[in-house]
Amino acid sequence: MAEELILLDEWLSMFGMRARIALAEKGIKYVYKEEDLDNKSQMLLQMNPIHKKIPVLIHKGKPICESINIVEYIDEVWNESVPFLPSDPYQKSQARFWADFVNKKVGDVGGRIWPGRRDEIEVAKKELIEGLKELEIVLGDKPYFGGDTFGYVDIALIPFYTWFYTYEELCNFKVEAECDKLIAWAKRCKQRESVSKSVADEKEVYEYVVNYRKRFDLD
Amino acid sequence: MAEELILLDEWLSMFGMRARIALAEKGIKYVYKEEDLDNKSQMLLQMNPIHKKIPVLIHKGKPICESINIVEYIDEVWNESVPFLPSDPYQKSQARFWADFVNKKVGDVGGRIWPGRRDEIEVAKKELIEGLKELEIVLGDKPYFGGDTFGYVDIALIPFYTWFYTYEELCNFKVEAECDKLIAWAKRCKQRESVSKSVADEKEVYEYVVNYRKRFDLD
Repeated sequence: MAEELILLDEWLSMFGMRARIALAEKGIKYVYKEEDLDNKSQMLLQMNPIHKKIPVLIHKGKPICESINIVEYIDEVWNESVPFLPSDPYQKSQARFWADFVNKKVGDVGGRIWPGRRDEIEVAKKELIEGLKELEIVLGDKPYFGGDTFGYVDIALIPFYTWFYTYEELCNFKVEAECDKLIAWAKRCKQRESVSKSVADEKEVYEYVVNYRKRFDLD
Repeated sequence: MAEELILLDEWLSMFGMRARIALAEKGIKYVYKEEDLDNKSQMLLQMNPIHKKIPVLIHKGKPICESINIVEYIDEVWNESVPFLPSDPYQKSQARFWADFVNKKVGDVGGRIWPGRRDEIEVAKKELIEGLKELEIVLGDKPYFGGDTFGYVDIALIPFYTWFYTYEELCNFKVEAECDKLIAWAKRCKQRESVSKSVADEKEVYEYVVNYRKRFDLD
């Protein structure tokens, strides 16, 4: 019954990677369907008619959209293993706050870098570094954002590590020089098979972005 | 022990109203502290150092930030009454999806209308109407977004009703002419004391906006 669970995704999407990591952490089998976002499938248009975006998790024919929502759904449905979210309401509210912070200060800001003009990149670079520094403070000396166990905020943030090389090349800086503990955390996460097998190759992401920027004459 | 629960808020904030409605629905007593956002209090800066925004719910000295997060926290901590969120994971994921939709397609879009220049308002008006029409489709013939009971998506959306008059005056349209079922839903919600006592007066909101627009020479 693997067909009962389908992930509509695109290989380099950090949002898609969140879903892949969450599914791998829970040891769930699913059918992966790569979308061509220049030519979206009928299935994607039917399953996410509102935003028409990946990732979409289709469980028993019903779609769940938005990556953080998908991670939370997976955590609730396959609830026999270690949960991604803490059970304490306050700790849970903090995890949700920081996942939202990742969306805004890494996701949205990163989304202004890779397809951005040079002047936009300079502004976004500064904001990105600020955001990553805030995250490093929150991480502190813990092995993971969730404490001793890999969890919700880790899943929300780690896919962006795959994009750091692209941000670094386009912005001319090194994340490690700014946030060495965050890089140590990312390497720790990458040792997990659930992460290493779910994320894209950083050089392939960069190559894609370089080609995209050439195509739209952005440099 | 009312001091154990404090809400930092601003009277016309739709996000603050969400927190007020959620607290009123649960019958929870709290101390309301009005913030002057031109001159933020030390308490606000300490309790939300990242975004420095209202609303902030402070429970036993610990802050919960971001309005949707606050609503979910209230639902989890005071869990003896009818819950805001359904218990079924799929239904829950749908409620979260639509609350996020409200943030993006009503909140963000509305946030481009009231302090916007005339050309920005025209673009945003079209998007706002599209967003409200989508919401009306989702509501369908149900009394509330949650079905028979007032819940999560209702709490996320109803504060914007207070702002409809402002959007209508600035954009020169009537929400009811576009979405009559949505207005019927809003009036139904407004009959609840938890809503009517928690929301601002629509004319006072408009007056504030008119003064703001004069101050920044936006018309």
